[in-house]
Amino acid sequence: MLKECWKNVQDRTPLVHNITNYVTVNDVANVLLACGGSPIMSDEPEDVEDITAICGGLNINIGTLNQSSIQAMFLAGRKANQLGHPVLLDPVGTGASRLRTGTANRLVKEIKLTAIRGNISEIKTIAFGQGTTKGVDADVADAVTEESLPAAVAFAKNLAKRLDTIIVITGAIDIVADAGTAYVIRNGRPEMGRITGTGCQLSGLLTAYLTANPEQLLEAAASAVVLMGVAGEIGWENMLPGDGNSTYRNRIIDAIFNMDAETLENRAKVEQM
Amino acid sequence: MLKECWKNVQDRTPLVHNITNYVTVNDVANVLLACGGSPIMSDEPEDVEDITAICGGLNINIGTLNQSSIQAMFLAGRKANQLGHPVLLDPVGTGASRLRTGTANRLVKEIKLTAIRGNISEIKTIAFGQGTTKGVDADVADAVTEESLPAAVAFAKNLAKRLDTIIVITGAIDIVADAGTAYVIRNGRPEMGRITGTGCQLSGLLTAYLTANPEQLLEAAASAVVLMGVAGEIGWENMLPGDGNSTYRNRIIDAIFNMDAETLENRAKVEQM
Amino acid sequence: MLKECWKNVQDRTPLVHNITNYVTVNDVANVLLACGGSPIMSDEPEDVEDITAICGGLNINIGTLNQSSIQAMFLAGRKANQLGHPVLLDPVGTGASRLRTGTANRLVKEIKLTAIRGNISEIKTIAFGQGTTKGVDADVADAVTEESLPAAVAFAKNLAKRLDTIIVITGAIDIVADAGTAYVIRNGRPEMGRITGTGCQLSGLLTAYLTANPEQLLEAAASAVVLMGVAGEIGWENMLPGDGNSTYRNRIIDAIFNMDAETLENRAKVEQM
Repeated sequence: MLKECWKNVQDRTPLVHNITNYVTVNDVANVLLACGGSPIMSDEPEDVEDITAICGGLNINIGTLNQSSIQAMFLAGRKANQLGHPVLLDPVGTGASRLRTGTANRLVKEIKLTAIRGNISEIKTIAFGQGTTKGVDADVADAVTEESLPAAVAFAKNLAKRLDTIIVITGAIDIVADAGTAYVIRNGRPEMGRITGTGCQLSGLLTAYLTANPEQLLEAAASAVVLMGVAGEIGWENMLPGDGNSTYRNRIIDAIFNMDAETLENRAKVEQM
Repeated sequence: MLKECWKNVQDRTPLVHNITNYVTVNDVANVLLACGGSPIMSDEPEDVEDITAICGGLNINIGTLNQSSIQAMFLAGRKANQLGHPVLLDPVGTGASRLRTGTANRLVKEIKLTAIRGNISEIKTIAFGQGTTKGVDADVADAVTEESLPAAVAFAKNLAKRLDTIIVITGAIDIVADAGTAYVIRNGRPEMGRITGTGCQLSGLLTAYLTANPEQLLEAAASAVVLMGVAGEIGWENMLPGDGNSTYRNRIIDAIFNMDAETLENRAKVEQM
Repeated sequence: MLKECWKNVQDRTPLVHNITNYVTVNDVANVLLACGGSPIMSDEPEDVEDITAICGGLNINIGTLNQSSIQAMFLAGRKANQLGHPVLLDPVGTGASRLRTGTANRLVKEIKLTAIRGNISEIKTIAFGQGTTKGVDADVADAVTEESLPAAVAFAKNLAKRLDTIIVITGAIDIVADAGTAYVIRNGRPEMGRITGTGCQLSGLLTAYLTANPEQLLEAAASAVVLMGVAGEIGWENMLPGDGNSTYRNRIIDAIFNMDAETLENRAKVEQM
């Protein structure tokens, strides 16, 4: 699956419309170019429907949402739904403010989402509608560990079934699940958390992979997660004395740029659950 | 011309007001510092007239336009016109949406532009008023190749004459034209297209060169295009195993930072047509 | 003081809310992660109070202010004041436009600021309420040099006393002053001025240090300034042939990522005045 999904991105050059935060937007654009896709950014309500119409997929990231971009997310999302384009939601910080939680919840309700990617805290907020629910989510741990993995996989599958979408939970162990199948991925490096925006970058990659692989969406999502993790490992191996998180950021994107299908497959640590 | 234009930028430290997209704005700022200029960014309508007034030139880039920044473009553009400052337009994505096409067309009509820089598709949209005109632009190919070069040069000169501005078309072969003269430039690397924002960076450079060289605007524009191309070549020669598009971005800006007039002249591949 | 302030940032992982410009925001985020802190960006009025409430400190930077973000600055500032969080102001470009000057002056008046960081020109505008006062500020030179240092230190202490805040003036020589004590810091490199955003990055660092060191705010501010300067020196020492300002940016953030308390203390050039 990895080789095929990777090759389809190379061959089809998916054009991805990104409504994303201004913090990591440059890295998202470069990672989309690195993987073989092509990025367009637009968050003006009057502009987004036209832009989404010429793209193949839509990446919605609420990291620095504002009144205007929120409106744009719904306009673009509805247009993408009409056109049958895959739509990914990255609910950055949902649970941390009422505006973020409310916006993410409304997007989940009103837009048909192909995939939702977040950390366990954000995905739990998606599941339970709010971020401070202590009672309801007592059965899902706050981090995905080897111990909590079976429960987290069940949680992801259930949520995927209820919302009819692919759920991607990223952390030390990543989970990519639809209602029936979950891929568990153990690639990546803890140091990726010391760079801003590796999650946003992955959401860009995911959208490109979904766009280029409509016939195998779950496998496409898993492939994008493996790609990001393997690139994080290769980038770390390429670190020289004196290098830190700023250079590491470059080396990860560089590793995606230089990836080949064999390397991706040979280094993948993915199992089906 | 190259040495003199380059030296004027070093000596005069042109201060450039940029109304530009949030995707590549950091690179535009660093490339302006690298070339010997100085950047200021402001896109708030209430702020832009004061900011333009203390600068020497204005760079308008519609890459992530919004209702507020569009208003700012016209306010700053008119102010810059009153003050006699050079104004460059980078019509990113014109032809891709009605808002972009309409905004670019209005800017061309209402603001006196010193130069317009875009790829062939964007410049054709500027010329024909819309992006999907199949009939009208049948005589101009969709890419500037050795075969289509004479027609493209004629097209650029005609457009420059009609709009009374300098036309800069960038691609595998670059054209810098006014009504009477065109410079054709063959520097650069195809891999520059795998980095987000090399076009935006060039528009920043162009504005700095126009600002510092009021007595030779066409030569200044050609010099900026040569500079970007030569930096792209040097940056690529400095790539090490494992480097990709993210590091390449840094190496190009670094090459501009380390440029000297002799290197620029020795490596330039420029001819007059 | 340096070792303790540094260690407190490592141990306490200060969470900093940034309302900052879109030019250098990615570097601010990465420098906060590099130093041991954690960044959140939000500038939407409806979002900022909730976000500030979950953070430990607030960094307000007016570099690309707009009507919406100005409103957010006051809402977040008042909320942070209510919660007793440290608030830093970086009045980028105050004096360059009426909107910037007016906004900075209103922030100084209406928000209790823990520290204000700017270059000498910006801090003089803060002191005198406008940027073009030729008469009033005749006693403070336009650059802090060894000759003007005693007058500049007196100016900083007086302003700190009048505004009841910490004044941080950065340049070739840096001054960190409250009403009674000033630290004079001679670390750093002139080449840092050829990178966009080293000032913004320092303001991020300052906020993290103030947040993690409530019991010694002046020392925390001085430590952050030393850290930025030492990182600028180490970053420059790590430059290779062909490297320029873009790579230098990465190497400075990398140096902060790799800093240890001993290096910081051994390289510090700080004196009390």
